[in-house]
Amino acid sequence: VSRRGMQTVTLIPGDGIGPEISAAVIKIFEAAKVPVKWEERNVTAIKGPGGRWMIPPDAKESMDRSKIGLKGPLKTPIAAGHPSMNLLLRKTFDLYANVRPCISIEGYKTPYTDVDLVTIRENTEGEYSGIEHVIVDGVVQSIKLITEKASKRIAEYAFEYARNNQRNSVTAVHKANIMRMSDGLFLRKCREVAENFKDIKFTEMYLDTVCLNMVQDPTQFDVLVMPNLYGDILSDLCAGLIGGLGVTPSGNIGANGVAIFESVHGTAPDIAGLDLANPTALLLSAVMMLRHMGLHPHADKIQTACFDTIRDKKFLTKDLGGNAKCSEFTSEICRRVQDLD
Amino acid sequence: VSRRGMQTVTLIPGDGIGPEISAAVIKIFEAAKVPVKWEERNVTAIKGPGGRWMIPPDAKESMDRSKIGLKGPLKTPIAAGHPSMNLLLRKTFDLYANVRPCISIEGYKTPYTDVDLVTIRENTEGEYSGIEHVIVDGVVQSIKLITEKASKRIAEYAFEYARNNQRNSVTAVHKANIMRMSDGLFLRKCREVAENFKDIKFTEMYLDTVCLNMVQDPTQFDVLVMPNLYGDILSDLCAGLIGGLGVTPSGNIGANGVAIFESVHGTAPDIAGLDLANPTALLLSAVMMLRHMGLHPHADKIQTACFDTIRDKKFLTKDLGGNAKCSEFTSEICRRVQDLD
Ligand SMILES: CC(C)[C@H](C(=O)O)[C@@H](O)C(=O)O
Ligand SMILES: CC(C)[C@H](C(=O)O)[C@@H](O)C(=O)O
Repeated sequence: VSRRGMQTVTLIPGDGIGPEISAAVIKIFEAAKVPVKWEERNVTAIKGPGGRWMIPPDAKESMDRSKIGLKGPLKTPIAAGHPSMNLLLRKTFDLYANVRPCISIEGYKTPYTDVDLVTIRENTEGEYSGIEHVIVDGVVQSIKLITEKASKRIAEYAFEYARNNQRNSVTAVHKANIMRMSDGLFLRKCREVAENFKDIKFTEMYLDTVCLNMVQDPTQFDVLVMPNLYGDILSDLCAGLIGGLGVTPSGNIGANGVAIFESVHGTAPDIAGLDLANPTALLLSAVMMLRHMGLHPHADKIQTACFDTIRDKKFLTKDLGGNAKCSEFTSEICRRVQDLD
Repeated sequence: VSRRGMQTVTLIPGDGIGPEISAAVIKIFEAAKVPVKWEERNVTAIKGPGGRWMIPPDAKESMDRSKIGLKGPLKTPIAAGHPSMNLLLRKTFDLYANVRPCISIEGYKTPYTDVDLVTIRENTEGEYSGIEHVIVDGVVQSIKLITEKASKRIAEYAFEYARNNQRNSVTAVHKANIMRMSDGLFLRKCREVAENFKDIKFTEMYLDTVCLNMVQDPTQFDVLVMPNLYGDILSDLCAGLIGGLGVTPSGNIGANGVAIFESVHGTAPDIAGLDLANPTALLLSAVMMLRHMGLHPHADKIQTACFDTIRDKKFLTKDLGGNAKCSEFTSEICRRVQDLD
């Protein structure tokens, strides 16, 4: 926090439509007089000493100082051996929890109404260990790594999250009937942590059962916590229930307040630069960020203006079923933000 | 095939509601004059020589002879170390392909219409290898095993299935962006096999993307093929789209015609013996079985009678939204089967 009460946020506009939707968020933040100073950085990995891929030092340094990042979509680099930027960022800043609230948006019709759940995904290990071997010709093994430490940490995060966000229940999602030791360890840690949160209801459910129940009646779920790969799957499934990645916010949370909030949709190169993109996912991620920073009144105002604009249907981007340009949708949100003052 | 043209089928009625729904299928088969002779067996595992769990010899022997099984739900035995019966059966008879057609049922309302897809799951390896270790205290690894042989076999099965069932496309579902070697091998085999099936469109898609797209518009999918765990998840998800496990058939296919068809719902001990169970999933599995045996006219007749009964809504079991008993629903199907003659 600087002298004038401004907090710095590292802005990673990203590729394709990234710069446009980032500009939209900046404009809306200005309209809402959010006390945030942007520090723009490019994170595309470079080869560091010893040939290891790393994010550029000035981006790393900015994040280390600000602790908070907002990130648009990044294109997957095609250079041989280039790592996924998403994975590299999670790793560099030890962003161990991926948090995705999936809440039905009034006025944006999908087969489901009243979805109101949050997926909390362990973001650092599991099937994403990157350890694989050829055993003999034609036989490959991949190693899923589950640790007590990471399982406990994510379980604690989920229960704290539930408590701090007035949510009633946490469901641990697992396949401990099959992976008895690894998912078993994860589940045991969830059970142990649950003991310390008697105010939150704890349940456990097989991943396949969760998927089946989810598409039949998502309203039965509240907070869900799970290992890495299951979270990858379930968070996308749940995004689908409320309208897709274009309207779903996401946050990657680390220790000591470090966090990167991001839209998880693609770079949409086909419409990049045409003022047609929908900034909602990045904007709602920025709203999550504001709550994380303790700026709740600003968060509420922007969220209300965004949802009101969508409900009103007069200024919708194409993907939301309208004809408005990104800039028109953005201006309407700005106007409503100012009206809320 | 016996002298009188009767084929033997090993019937594993199972636990809970298993015997009731099996009786319903037997009755409907009689009404349809299906040339099938039932050989009833109990498969609950016993401890064999050397303390290894195995299915009872008379059940094994029956299956070895008949090659075809129809199986109701089995309760998970609580004896320590007792294996999952589903896994043991798959293993004992090397049932390498799990096939689940998910087709919208007219008259049974869900948020989706016109779902018409088939999930084909590799049933023998992957995350189900059962190989797990504690590395050091608090660190566990599970091994996901992918082989060229099993990947090729399931890919070939999927493409043959598509061709034999007038389907247009096969989608390989994977996370080769994360598990580059294991899912990479699976995917490579799918691509190679696709080369031999130029009449079938081949696409590849990340599992998370499939889940997202699936809940937004399942009609875009046709045949999907995938490693074991992904199939566990997706097949249940897809069952949810059309009304759940109570109406979804399933087949486990091995080499040389060996196959076990089964309802994948639970034993429903709360309603067991009360004549309230819905036999649809087992009946539709039996219809899949008839097609597998080449008895298409009988299959068609029974399927039509079943779907007509559901569409008509006069005799529906409770879970389908009606008040009919299992026996009343069954009689109505029998009546319609006979009318179709
Ligand atoms: C881009 C990819 C590595 C990533 C993942 O699999 O985790 C993505 O699907 C996600 O959910 O952020
Ligand atoms: C019962 C269990 C072992 C099984 C699995 O995980 O494969 C079940 O979910 C299935 O899909 O048949």
